[in-house]
Amino acid sequence: MTSTGAAQRLQEDLLELATYSQGGPGTSRRLFSTAYRDSREWVRRSMLDAGLTVDYDGAGNIVGVLEGANPNAGALMTGSHTDTVDGGGDFDGVVGVLGAIEVARQLREEGRRLAHDLVIVDFLGEESNDHGLTCLGSRAFVGDLTANDLERLDATGETLGERCRSNGLDPSTMLTAGRRFRRPRAYVELHIEQGPVLEERQSDIGVVTGIVGIQRLLATFTGRADHAGTTPMARRRDALVAAASAVLAVRQTGCDSHEQGVTTTSEIAGYTSGPNVVPQRTRLLAEMRSISPVWLSEAERRLTQEIIDLAATYGVHAELEWIADNEPRPMDTSIQRRIAGASEALGLTWEAIPSGATHDAVHLARKCPTAMVFVPSVGGRSHCPEESTATDDLVNGVDVLRETLVNLDSTSS
Amino acid sequence: MTSTGAAQRLQEDLLELATYSQGGPGTSRRLFSTAYRDSREWVRRSMLDAGLTVDYDGAGNIVGVLEGANPNAGALMTGSHTDTVDGGGDFDGVVGVLGAIEVARQLREEGRRLAHDLVIVDFLGEESNDHGLTCLGSRAFVGDLTANDLERLDATGETLGERCRSNGLDPSTMLTAGRRFRRPRAYVELHIEQGPVLEERQSDIGVVTGIVGIQRLLATFTGRADHAGTTPMARRRDALVAAASAVLAVRQTGCDSHEQGVTTTSEIAGYTSGPNVVPQRTRLLAEMRSISPVWLSEAERRLTQEIIDLAATYGVHAELEWIADNEPRPMDTSIQRRIAGASEALGLTWEAIPSGATHDAVHLARKCPTAMVFVPSVGGRSHCPEESTATDDLVNGVDVLRETLVNLDSTSS
Repeated sequence: MTSTGAAQRLQEDLLELATYSQGGPGTSRRLFSTAYRDSREWVRRSMLDAGLTVDYDGAGNIVGVLEGANPNAGALMTGSHTDTVDGGGDFDGVVGVLGAIEVARQLREEGRRLAHDLVIVDFLGEESNDHGLTCLGSRAFVGDLTANDLERLDATGETLGERCRSNGLDPSTMLTAGRRFRRPRAYVELHIEQGPVLEERQSDIGVVTGIVGIQRLLATFTGRADHAGTTPMARRRDALVAAASAVLAVRQTGCDSHEQGVTTTSEIAGYTSGPNVVPQRTRLLAEMRSISPVWLSEAERRLTQEIIDLAATYGVHAELEWIADNEPRPMDTSIQRRIAGASEALGLTWEAIPSGATHDAVHLARKCPTAMVFVPSVGGRSHCPEESTATDDLVNGVDVLRETLVNLDSTSS
Repeated sequence: MTSTGAAQRLQEDLLELATYSQGGPGTSRRLFSTAYRDSREWVRRSMLDAGLTVDYDGAGNIVGVLEGANPNAGALMTGSHTDTVDGGGDFDGVVGVLGAIEVARQLREEGRRLAHDLVIVDFLGEESNDHGLTCLGSRAFVGDLTANDLERLDATGETLGERCRSNGLDPSTMLTAGRRFRRPRAYVELHIEQGPVLEERQSDIGVVTGIVGIQRLLATFTGRADHAGTTPMARRRDALVAAASAVLAVRQTGCDSHEQGVTTTSEIAGYTSGPNVVPQRTRLLAEMRSISPVWLSEAERRLTQEIIDLAATYGVHAELEWIADNEPRPMDTSIQRRIAGASEALGLTWEAIPSGATHDAVHLARKCPTAMVFVPSVGGRSHCPEESTATDDLVNGVDVLRETLVNLDSTSS
């Protein structure tokens, strides 16, 4: 198989999958939409055409298997997801599924039969759904979906479980789908970076060192409502000024990080009392991400004190509530080395980078050795119609995925 | 009349007027409410009891006249308003009306007949109404109410003019009410400070130097929506960070003012895109107040440049729109001197201070020599149920108002 051939097939597959969309700008394949359901039938047929044995598991994941030579060797796993955010692009997740199918095609064409089964999964609903849950399919796949998860409500008051049932999925089967999970030899996921680092550093491949943990902050500032005309500056207890200083402190915490931490205030939610009143109460929503659990807990401690102290200088009382969203999830170092080695053998440059976004790999990593291969995102853009990756980079990603799997296959017990 | 007698009468009047309220915490007498209408009938009777000739003018103002000895001398005017904000107190405005009536009572009891007519006005609806207009009565009184003012809509889509008509006021009569305005010798308004300065400096009387001008700012910040996990800090164009730095710059501008300027950001209005997205767009509402037009225009120029420059350091585009609300309105210096002289003759301490809030006096000042007498507000609180002024301070204010009017009467041509 020439690179040109692979490039053409990948491009054709991407274009064909992109035709399945709910309409509106960009591509929209939301969980349980007709466009998503139809697109997955196309994915299933693509797996069949590549010579895989294909089945839906009890949790709505499409599982394709290319049988290995040694029935006792277990499985090497790869895959990703094909759902999108609303108005998203055609590469996030998709590259990992179509790239894996292309790897299977190439192995068959080259007559390279692996010892292990090669298992390719198109995980159901990785993006945050109407019920606020991400990675529905991969959670269920590894047996980590909970009954509480299925009790989550959407805006209409319907539970996720009810929603699944009315879309042909049996909630009790979803909860027990993980029983079918056989701890594989490894899981390797190909994905677009969704950030600008690889492009900026002109690296072909990102060797993902870990998937960040997320700490979310809800801060509430309470000052005093005073007349904005008659109250001297020194007498004020301005909750919005305190919140503004906290926004800058949140930012600086990220800027000062030596652990690739990033910090974002996403919203200041005010309770406005009118244009001539000193703001009495303000809320702020922020998050910190890092692959370092030590940095996250240390930054949380320091930032908490800093925000309380800053608010106090303005006579404002600050209350902070932190919620751990994801724990940082380091990727398997042995597989990282194999990805780097495969890149070098292919003459590609690589960079060790963390993943700032969450992925299905987070859930697989709790159960088996897991790693990720990143390819560059044009302009670092993602979750938007402009999301793009150059075809050469896609081919490189597929090559590195293939060679990493082959390496794992030949060097594993 | 002894001070004890005046104190008792003022207290009784304040308590009686306070019984007129729409309910809820504090005192509420909103424009066109039944409580307000009923309370003004009580005000009218109080004026009659004090020996005044009383009439409603065509704009809903209650005008009481204590006839002077010299029919050609013209009028000395005083007064204020008796409507309140929702959930307000019992002193804002009320003190100026009840205090003026007490002055009339004292003059009659003492047999001190002025050469000028003494005209006391309870101006209609000084507080911002449902249509966003302040000083409805005093605007009409001096002939500054416009047809456009009456076209203002409330939340239900009703115009102010329609609202007036359904409450017994003829809009065309309101627009022409100013024709009855005979330029008086002077207007002197007694009012609570609504701020903490007099109390802090232990001054009995505030001689108001001017009523502040207000410049309102609407700033819009446009950055770029990026993934909050995958976008390095240095690559971000965060509109909320830019807005936060602007909030602090707005505050510092007030803190640095040598012209008693005050600056307030009342609201950051975000367009949130979710917790994992760098904010793309933010709006900010702020205001600056000062009695110095030079400071206002200079501060506007400097702050505009500072906010644009700050935003640029974060890669964010800032657009600023300034709207002049009120022009600064200096008070008549000759009357200011008389107020200070009257205070000293009465053995009272006084302080020259600007008014950070707007008053009916703003509109009178455009037409005749105008000044204001402030009395201390407990804790600087106003527009809230806790609004209060000590009875001794009320009596002092009435004494200073009386002696200032007497002085104006005797020294005017």
